Amino acid sequence: MVFDSLAEGEHEQVSYFSDPETGLEAIIAVHDTTLGPGLGGTRMLDYETEADALDDVLRLSKAMTKKAAAADLDLGGAKAVIVGDHESLKTTELLEAYGRAVDCMGGRYITSVDVNSSVADMEVIATETDHVVGREDGLGDPSPITATGVLSGLEAAVEYEYGTDSFEGIDVVVQGLGKVGSALASGLIERGASVTVSDVSEDNIERFLADHDAELVAPDDIYDEPCDVFAPCAIGGVINDETVPRLDCDIVAGGANNPLAERRHADELADRGIWYAPDYVINAGGLITVAEEYRGGTRDAAFEKATAIGDRLSRMMERAEDEGTTVLDAADAFARERIENADRTTPARFD
Amino acid sequence: MVFDSLAEGEHEQVSYFSDPETGLEAIIAVHDTTLGPGLGGTRMLDYETEADALDDVLRLSKAMTKKAAAADLDLGGAKAVIVGDHESLKTTELLEAYGRAVDCMGGRYITSVDVNSSVADMEVIATETDHVVGREDGLGDPSPITATGVLSGLEAAVEYEYGTDSFEGIDVVVQGLGKVGSALASGLIERGASVTVSDVSEDNIERFLADHDAELVAPDDIYDEPCDVFAPCAIGGVINDETVPRLDCDIVAGGANNPLAERRHADELADRGIWYAPDYVINAGGLITVAEEYRGGTRDAAFEKATAIGDRLSRMMERAEDEGTTVLDAADAFARERIENADRTTPARFD
Repeated sequence: MVFDSLAEGEHEQVSYFSDPETGLEAIIAVHDTTLGPGLGGTRMLDYETEADALDDVLRLSKAMTKKAAAADLDLGGAKAVIVGDHESLKTTELLEAYGRAVDCMGGRYITSVDVNSSVADMEVIATETDHVVGREDGLGDPSPITATGVLSGLEAAVEYEYGTDSFEGIDVVVQGLGKVGSALASGLIERGASVTVSDVSEDNIERFLADHDAELVAPDDIYDEPCDVFAPCAIGGVINDETVPRLDCDIVAGGANNPLAERRHADELADRGIWYAPDYVINAGGLITVAEEYRGGTRDAAFEKATAIGDRLSRMMERAEDEGTTVLDAADAFARERIENADRTTPARFD
Repeated sequence: MVFDSLAEGEHEQVSYFSDPETGLEAIIAVHDTTLGPGLGGTRMLDYETEADALDDVLRLSKAMTKKAAAADLDLGGAKAVIVGDHESLKTTELLEAYGRAVDCMGGRYITSVDVNSSVADMEVIATETDHVVGREDGLGDPSPITATGVLSGLEAAVEYEYGTDSFEGIDVVVQGLGKVGSALASGLIERGASVTVSDVSEDNIERFLADHDAELVAPDDIYDEPCDVFAPCAIGGVINDETVPRLDCDIVAGGANNPLAERRHADELADRGIWYAPDYVINAGGLITVAEEYRGGTRDAAFEKATAIGDRLSRMMERAEDEGTTVLDAADAFARERIENADRTTPARFD
């Protein structure tokens, strides 16, 4: 039941909103607001069961708490799901009703784009609430900022592993040439790295190789490519039982969400002497961008904050080495301690 | 599941709050806010299952919408339950956490006293939110105002049935001599009615008969007592399969909540030629009092609004006679139409 799920994940609140007229069924989960209001996107999916929708929104909102804390933001974690098929059910009226639902959260929840919700959708939602980011007149495409953050993380990892502040002579394999992957690969080439790329889309490959000097590898062979850094920037789950033994690198660090199939794969990478830079630490540039948007900041400020990701990753690597844990464990501890040590005069819950 | 329950009752929102530190598990249901913010008490009960708690809060919040609409208030319907045994679990810290949860509703929910929650509890809750009524410095004990409203309803019913604006020669049986029942019986005697009373508590009977001239009947015999008006002012469910055939009266109208065991008993009273004045219409004085408290009004204003209950009941009786329905049906229609015809420039949901 709901309370057991809340207690298990230490969630503060979950709210269900229903509007038969527009067909809206939405669940907004607020995980933890110790550091600030909960920010997280709105995902629209045709969940098989209501329990699936609840599980998803609880899991995702909890992940946002950790991500915001690890990014040194004054934000908590939250997330929302709209239940239903976005192609047949997403109407202006439904989004307006959903915007009012977001507004009912009184600022404890700030929404943004996610799976099957777009910048245009945020504009509709914004007609009903101020608590929405990722807008048309926001800080623009966050992908270059995310790539800047990932690059900053790679620099820190390379410096920690090889003691060099240059990418000269460093071999990086970039999996995926989407917005973040291509920007990352481009930045790496500029800094002198030897880059090998891969993508399942011929268009993405052609577009990238037209302007850049990089090696190409087939998607299926990418895990066998000897390199210094493996940078997953495509789908999740690519670090798994099948690929961990194949990887021939010292560092795994990229822009993809959830590259680990399971958490234990971080330990298995460590057992093979491979540093794993936690995804939520180094790909936080997008979150940093919308957080900056919410506080009325500038794109330059978002870039600057994304550049600080490397310093945090360095400290987490030091801590991991000192304490004999993975960087993932060290990152989790960093996020947890920020919340535990928050300077608060009032109890955090429901504040 | 939750969404099915919301759709079935046409509820806008249900929010779960969890605070492991204080043991708080609360569900706040907002049924309908078309006419204004949802007001309803907080009930603390050790529900057997979470589903029981959800059912209860959904049912109760929906009833509050109808009650507020029928009382001509600019309020919607809402209610809250705290899950757990009040004797062992209700602490200052838990109530404070609950107060913050109420505050998270952003004014869409206004709380007050209910089963196992007291005026003193409201004071604790008020340290965390403004959206609480039934306070120590509020408008005082609502019972006399409730009794005034019930009396106003009885006057209207008697006038409609007998064409007299006096209680002279009218026999009224009052079941229950609690705060509302004794004030009602007292008011009836002052106005010249012949009153027969009953109570399961000897103390209540002695206290009342010390100051008033009334007949006494044993609790078990009260349903057989011939009279003009039967006024249930004790527990719920007293109008049931066993008692309907025994009643020897023209009017059933009192202060008790839910005197009907089931809705069909209103029809069965009608079949026997007995007017049933809907409980939520004539016992709305308590709600009127806290609504007045919330808007910063006076006790006098609450008395005045409670006195208007009779006029509304008259119109509902007329409508019932015109349309060949029960007064309960007419009252439901009155409440529904107030919501449907509300003058709104924006959609109501989640406003």
